Amino acid sequence: MERKKNYFAGPCVLPVEVLKEVEKNIVDYQGNGLSMIEASHRGGMFEKMYDECIALVRELYSVPEDYDVYFLGGGATLQFTMIPFNFLKKNTTADYAMTGVWANKATEDAIKLGRVNVIFDGKDSKYSTLPEPGSLRFSDDSSYVYICANETIGGLEWKEYPDTGNIPLICDMSSNYFSQPVPVEKFSMIYGGVQKNLGPAGATLIIMKKSMLDRRNENIPAYLDYGRHSKEKGLYNTPPVFSIWVVKLVLEWIKANGGVKGMYDRSLITSGMIYDVIDNSNNFYYSPVDARFRSRMNICFRIRNQELEAKFLEEAKNNGMLGLKGHRSVGGLRASLYNSLPTSDVEFLRDFMIKFEKENS
Amino acid sequence: MERKKNYFAGPCVLPVEVLKEVEKNIVDYQGNGLSMIEASHRGGMFEKMYDECIALVRELYSVPEDYDVYFLGGGATLQFTMIPFNFLKKNTTADYAMTGVWANKATEDAIKLGRVNVIFDGKDSKYSTLPEPGSLRFSDDSSYVYICANETIGGLEWKEYPDTGNIPLICDMSSNYFSQPVPVEKFSMIYGGVQKNLGPAGATLIIMKKSMLDRRNENIPAYLDYGRHSKEKGLYNTPPVFSIWVVKLVLEWIKANGGVKGMYDRSLITSGMIYDVIDNSNNFYYSPVDARFRSRMNICFRIRNQELEAKFLEEAKNNGMLGLKGHRSVGGLRASLYNSLPTSDVEFLRDFMIKFEKENS
Repeated sequence: MERKKNYFAGPCVLPVEVLKEVEKNIVDYQGNGLSMIEASHRGGMFEKMYDECIALVRELYSVPEDYDVYFLGGGATLQFTMIPFNFLKKNTTADYAMTGVWANKATEDAIKLGRVNVIFDGKDSKYSTLPEPGSLRFSDDSSYVYICANETIGGLEWKEYPDTGNIPLICDMSSNYFSQPVPVEKFSMIYGGVQKNLGPAGATLIIMKKSMLDRRNENIPAYLDYGRHSKEKGLYNTPPVFSIWVVKLVLEWIKANGGVKGMYDRSLITSGMIYDVIDNSNNFYYSPVDARFRSRMNICFRIRNQELEAKFLEEAKNNGMLGLKGHRSVGGLRASLYNSLPTSDVEFLRDFMIKFEKENS
Repeated sequence: MERKKNYFAGPCVLPVEVLKEVEKNIVDYQGNGLSMIEASHRGGMFEKMYDECIALVRELYSVPEDYDVYFLGGGATLQFTMIPFNFLKKNTTADYAMTGVWANKATEDAIKLGRVNVIFDGKDSKYSTLPEPGSLRFSDDSSYVYICANETIGGLEWKEYPDTGNIPLICDMSSNYFSQPVPVEKFSMIYGGVQKNLGPAGATLIIMKKSMLDRRNENIPAYLDYGRHSKEKGLYNTPPVFSIWVVKLVLEWIKANGGVKGMYDRSLITSGMIYDVIDNSNNFYYSPVDARFRSRMNICFRIRNQELEAKFLEEAKNNGMLGLKGHRSVGGLRASLYNSLPTSDVEFLRDFMIKFEKENS
């Protein structure tokens, strides 16, 4: 069957070349007589692939030597717990910017584990805007500052990161990971679920400055302890092998397509195509998001006449387009334009939106 | 290439029929125009597969209605934390049986989170034996009793489970999951990583009596909270989609091959083949494990003349046999005979062991 046009917010589209590579190797990995998913994580076949994957992460994101790189399970959601469990020390404060569903969930978990200072709350704007980075004030006893780089549900993306001086900056990059060059050295920890730009659900990619481990709390149970994972290079217990393998293939695909700079340049063009349709629709469509912080990855939009949204989705479906419904918590429409979405599928969406506007204005 | 004979302890062999089914559907799932790993976990294509998978778990294991069934990430190791975090209440005790590497790791994590009473410690026997279930004494203020059904590294398996009366019994079944009929109603919680008998690494299957949720601690961060996962039927956050899909295919394969009773009957025959070689080797081979508690899944053995073990492994490798080295923490040899290992591969190992003994006695 012809491939659907897949605008899901994650899990989502993967490069078809990668899927075909998986197809080719899923029964017998490169002539080794077994599948990668049948191989022990303590064996050479897995370890070679794993080392190559980690090396690609380091290369494509220019990760400094003094940072750990590994994968965990449990999704970004588990990190909402692990971060304060490790780094929110007694009698100190963690500074959280509440910018939407994902940052807010992280904040709620931290509040359960220690003292939290909310340095920004987008509530009054219905989470449609972000703070100017220079306007943020941090706690004197701050253990770390926490932000979410891209709010998948709200469609907001930080364009500049706050300068936190000596305070560690921790960032959830789940939904814009590897979609742009990032100054990794500005962050003490970056993490994200891989199931948007990088691969199949089931793995969370951790990039952490090794010196952060000295700031840990004591007596942390094994899986929650970043020190344990660092020491074992992410192989303390059985890792999510399949997800890691496919991430490696996607990273190779990113490298062959211009690296993260290539992904970034293309994302400006593709997201621009859709925002242009919205902005030039004479208010037929509108974006609920502060234009300064529009996400390149998740484009949230509405039809002024909201009764037309169901019709839009129905016709989209009839045209082989998936995943254009906004998140159930906010409603409306959303198109996710991750790395792996072909430009032709963005053009298809653009043309569909223009046609729908003409037919229903 | 001809398939290797795969005796890895996990990740490990999967049914080749399942791998071929994945191969057939990995680019385009059943003619839907996208891969299962590209589908949103909030969409019909995933949900249909997911519901079928959960139904198969319930059917094959005869799970009572008042139990939750879902998958989490982070491996069994994360459960070592989650169990005491949820169920070890202040001013109560958790009773742990320390029976080897895996139960001991669970115990160590619980000690970090609350009061633990060790009801058995196999240390003096070098973890080569298990307690008689009737000999165990539980704490008066016990929150739960914890056991590991099968020690993957030590090669020990409980044959009867302790009767804990009104105290909840919690069991790690990672390495003998779905290899035998289990009286689920005797347990308040059963869990296990799927990467031995059930599928590819990346998912942990949880089976929990719903009334356990009333015994939870308060104020648990989101991912660690079984109540949250129960309420959202395991879809609170993005689940490990690929692992769940393949588990479903393996469960169908188990069902077509006699269900867990069929797996059990065959495991008695196959493990018996190898233990017979050991017992009839006139002490050329020996088993370090109390014969009453020998695992059907993980057969640990040694060669009396330990210098021959390297030769054994070398010749095994030359015969296309993988994964026969004992765990690095205990040394020696180990053959894992999980559900998916063809009987012919067990026969091959048996014949190889007999030949090796003849040539080296």
